[in-house]
Amino acid sequence: MQEQRKRKTWAVIFLIVSVSIAILLLPQLNSFGKERAPTAAENEFMYEKSINVLVMLLIGFGFLMVFVKKYGYTAVTSTYLLVALSLPLYMLLRPYLWGAAADLSVTNISMLLFAEFAAASLLIAVGGPLGRIKTSQYLLIGLLFTPLYALNEWLVFGGIIIPAGAFLDTAGSITIHAFGAYFALGLTIMLTAKKEQDIRVETSKNSNQFALLGSAALWVFWPSFCAALAPIDKISLVAINTIMALCGATLMTYVASVLIRGKIEVSDIANASLAGGVAIGASVANVTPGLSLMIGLVAGGISVVGYAIVQPKLQKVTGGVDTCGVHNLHGMPGVFGGLVAMGLVAFPLWQLAGIGLTVILAVTMGVVVGFFVSKVGRTETAYEDREEFMLSE
Amino acid sequence: MQEQRKRKTWAVIFLIVSVSIAILLLPQLNSFGKERAPTAAENEFMYEKSINVLVMLLIGFGFLMVFVKKYGYTAVTSTYLLVALSLPLYMLLRPYLWGAAADLSVTNISMLLFAEFAAASLLIAVGGPLGRIKTSQYLLIGLLFTPLYALNEWLVFGGIIIPAGAFLDTAGSITIHAFGAYFALGLTIMLTAKKEQDIRVETSKNSNQFALLGSAALWVFWPSFCAALAPIDKISLVAINTIMALCGATLMTYVASVLIRGKIEVSDIANASLAGGVAIGASVANVTPGLSLMIGLVAGGISVVGYAIVQPKLQKVTGGVDTCGVHNLHGMPGVFGGLVAMGLVAFPLWQLAGIGLTVILAVTMGVVVGFFVSKVGRTETAYEDREEFMLSE
Amino acid sequence: MQEQRKRKTWAVIFLIVSVSIAILLLPQLNSFGKERAPTAAENEFMYEKSINVLVMLLIGFGFLMVFVKKYGYTAVTSTYLLVALSLPLYMLLRPYLWGAAADLSVTNISMLLFAEFAAASLLIAVGGPLGRIKTSQYLLIGLLFTPLYALNEWLVFGGIIIPAGAFLDTAGSITIHAFGAYFALGLTIMLTAKKEQDIRVETSKNSNQFALLGSAALWVFWPSFCAALAPIDKISLVAINTIMALCGATLMTYVASVLIRGKIEVSDIANASLAGGVAIGASVANVTPGLSLMIGLVAGGISVVGYAIVQPKLQKVTGGVDTCGVHNLHGMPGVFGGLVAMGLVAFPLWQLAGIGLTVILAVTMGVVVGFFVSKVGRTETAYEDREEFMLSE
Repeated sequence: MQEQRKRKTWAVIFLIVSVSIAILLLPQLNSFGKERAPTAAENEFMYEKSINVLVMLLIGFGFLMVFVKKYGYTAVTSTYLLVALSLPLYMLLRPYLWGAAADLSVTNISMLLFAEFAAASLLIAVGGPLGRIKTSQYLLIGLLFTPLYALNEWLVFGGIIIPAGAFLDTAGSITIHAFGAYFALGLTIMLTAKKEQDIRVETSKNSNQFALLGSAALWVFWPSFCAALAPIDKISLVAINTIMALCGATLMTYVASVLIRGKIEVSDIANASLAGGVAIGASVANVTPGLSLMIGLVAGGISVVGYAIVQPKLQKVTGGVDTCGVHNLHGMPGVFGGLVAMGLVAFPLWQLAGIGLTVILAVTMGVVVGFFVSKVGRTETAYEDREEFMLSE
Repeated sequence: MQEQRKRKTWAVIFLIVSVSIAILLLPQLNSFGKERAPTAAENEFMYEKSINVLVMLLIGFGFLMVFVKKYGYTAVTSTYLLVALSLPLYMLLRPYLWGAAADLSVTNISMLLFAEFAAASLLIAVGGPLGRIKTSQYLLIGLLFTPLYALNEWLVFGGIIIPAGAFLDTAGSITIHAFGAYFALGLTIMLTAKKEQDIRVETSKNSNQFALLGSAALWVFWPSFCAALAPIDKISLVAINTIMALCGATLMTYVASVLIRGKIEVSDIANASLAGGVAIGASVANVTPGLSLMIGLVAGGISVVGYAIVQPKLQKVTGGVDTCGVHNLHGMPGVFGGLVAMGLVAFPLWQLAGIGLTVILAVTMGVVVGFFVSKVGRTETAYEDREEFMLSE
Repeated sequence: MQEQRKRKTWAVIFLIVSVSIAILLLPQLNSFGKERAPTAAENEFMYEKSINVLVMLLIGFGFLMVFVKKYGYTAVTSTYLLVALSLPLYMLLRPYLWGAAADLSVTNISMLLFAEFAAASLLIAVGGPLGRIKTSQYLLIGLLFTPLYALNEWLVFGGIIIPAGAFLDTAGSITIHAFGAYFALGLTIMLTAKKEQDIRVETSKNSNQFALLGSAALWVFWPSFCAALAPIDKISLVAINTIMALCGATLMTYVASVLIRGKIEVSDIANASLAGGVAIGASVANVTPGLSLMIGLVAGGISVVGYAIVQPKLQKVTGGVDTCGVHNLHGMPGVFGGLVAMGLVAFPLWQLAGIGLTVILAVTMGVVVGFFVSKVGRTETAYEDREEFMLSE
């Protein structure tokens, strides 16, 4: 009953948080900045992409994490909750950072898109400690992560540290993917019990099949993720580049999986196939389809090497267990994508600075947030759905 | 064999019905009304949303109902059939009710959207007696429900009883959701055997996982449901309001589930999270994002209270078992949404009249249709897939 | 270990192929033809449809093939690989066939759409021998099929054999669906062991549920498949005609399934419901909604008759086992759709010539490709996932 009282306390806390966000949002309609008025058609084009990105968030990320057999409900439920928390929270916070200069109000579709990117990065971040924390802790991470994500975005894009326009990261290889992945690294360092480091995650045919479905949802809507904020005349190029990069990564995932492991690992297919989308993000509006295919091929290879070789070694060094292997899918391919863009910018060192700043901030803040989250509860062994869910079985 | 002959008779009846609809539709191309010509772009924007709503119908509603373990095939199959029956049927009937005034022909995308809304309401209505009727009975309900739905729509929006424009229900909190849910209430009263009232629906991890997938499909495409017929300059506002309402309901579902039950109930997450979308429907084009978040928070709470507390009591009073709990998701949150809109209209009493008329008509017609449907067969215990499907297992 | 070395050799071969495609694509940016510049809006409309078709490819076709219980990973993985291989390959090859006349470059969304159609036809083709070949053989088929598909497309549409414009096949009843299905017929003749002809495919409730999900994804996005390349002012008509045809086929599938089998066969619902989309393809921009509903009703009937009656007979005649029954879903309904269009063209004999040419080329090339593929390995019994995948269970 002690446990139940704690759960209820947390529920009340998040009720208060949610209502507060709603109240704070009440007066914000059109209250910040002068609106740059996108045409009705531009708005509509962004609208469709914002829906596609929503599919990626709830169905894509949500079901990709269902591969843990005894943790399927929690994976989907916390995806729901984190999206529902971070979208309004980001929309509330952003105007305070960017001020009137941002030309964004809470009723702009571009604001929604920025908020969806923040939610994507958050879902990446919790993929690390997945299964080692409770629902209330997911929510606590969401509450702390969202402002830090917005802060980093502002630091590298807002002309605060790096000159505006000097850092190229069109679709967030660095600021969305790598930030989430290295934040996850920080979290796992603080949230993994010693005991757990040798326990393999239990999967099943069905849980893997759902993960493949989530993966496919990410794959097919990834072009909308990359093209969401692209200028209209670049949408075709961005979409085709994204698809080429995904094709490259998919082909290389098969090749690398067979070459390294001798057989195909289904979780490689579900994950590393997407590494092309991660890596192309930074340079997607500035390269050709052929080059995108190349970037995808390399990214897919990096990702499989990550899952098969780097992950066990990194785990020994940091002591943190990365449940979803987000470092292999979003971390290394993200940094690779950011580095590729060094060849495309006027001042490569500013590009490098943006990458370095993001990774360092992410790991540090991940450790700090992980520390606070560990104060409200740690577990020795991975949780199962039955811990927090009513199960009839 | 008696059973098989009956099945075949019904199949022939529906063959005749289907062919008749096709024949009646043959001469209708452009035959009603003068076309208001939407621009090609407007048409295209509606087109994309009509596809999104199709996803909600077949994948959303279809799989949300798969949670009944031994009834998964029937749930998906009858979803297919009801959509396939009601879309052409509605498109055939509507011109007879609205006449030339509607400016709609069968080749208009807006006609398709209205037909999709009718199909959504029908799928809500059969969610009540789900599992207690046979495929032929689903089809019979579809055949009778569609004209009654169109009739109610015409009565409240067509200037027939309520002055045109006086009743605010932009995205159908009342006319789509509450109408379907209270029709379901009427159906269940006539189609539930006494014996069944104490039997709990059997679910499984996998059937629930599919239900969560259906739920996620509804969540992510709900903005398109609400924005489908919105004027272009309101699409952004409508989409963001819808998402805010869904976020609010999702957060509150977690809070209320924990506060009321002590643990999280996965079917609450799958269902009550959507109550925000139901409730925002009436006022979605007339409120701010902050207020939408509030409306969502309240709607999520109402829905969980419905599942946990109201449903067992209502079941005792009416004697009808509501398999999917549509009254908790579409009934009460729908009426709540309709009532909220009373604060936004010039003559609140007309709003109240629209709500009252819809609810009364729905329950009454549900009872009447339930009576006819019960004449062609009633069951003492819930059906299983094996009854009507060829199963190898 | 012999087996493992072979797998690795193939992996290296496909690595070389993939890298070669990337290198060959490098200089192709804007290098072929004069661009006809579609407006930004037109591009965007095609963009959204290209994403919808991607959903059909990866989630639709991918999961529809998951119905084979012990083959779920392979079905999804090979879908991924074949899409990733055929999209860039087609984009690389097409300019060599069509030359500057095609007004297409690799950064055109319409080029992407043509490539997606090629991928769809390829996925149909491998649906025949599904489960009887290995991953490397799927890739080998993809490598050989794509140029042959492009060749046939060029022969019937390019003014090479049939006068340009004389062959009506707007959304590919013949060139996409029938070509894939009859190619599959050729493949299965060469790739089926005698022993296998009497073994029934093993399915399970869960594998069938995933297949229904794949089917639903195809159903809902089919209008985008048909409307992708339609002129803007025809999009509404094409979309509604497609939906009507799908409704007709769905209703008839139920009717025919019950009339022929006495009970409903869930794989009929998952497959034959889509036959309306296949059959309407040829004439979709030239008929009315009522006629489309009729065409759908007939196509659904043809497809169920195919599954229940034609398939076992055809199997005896050809000796080939058609695992997914693609001949019933894409073959016969496709040819039926092509024949319907004979009533709509100026010179019906050219229409007939296009159908005949496509079918003959497809079967012949299927046999030839099947012969080569059988040289790198044949199996006596259907493969299971464990053959090539690392399985913990």
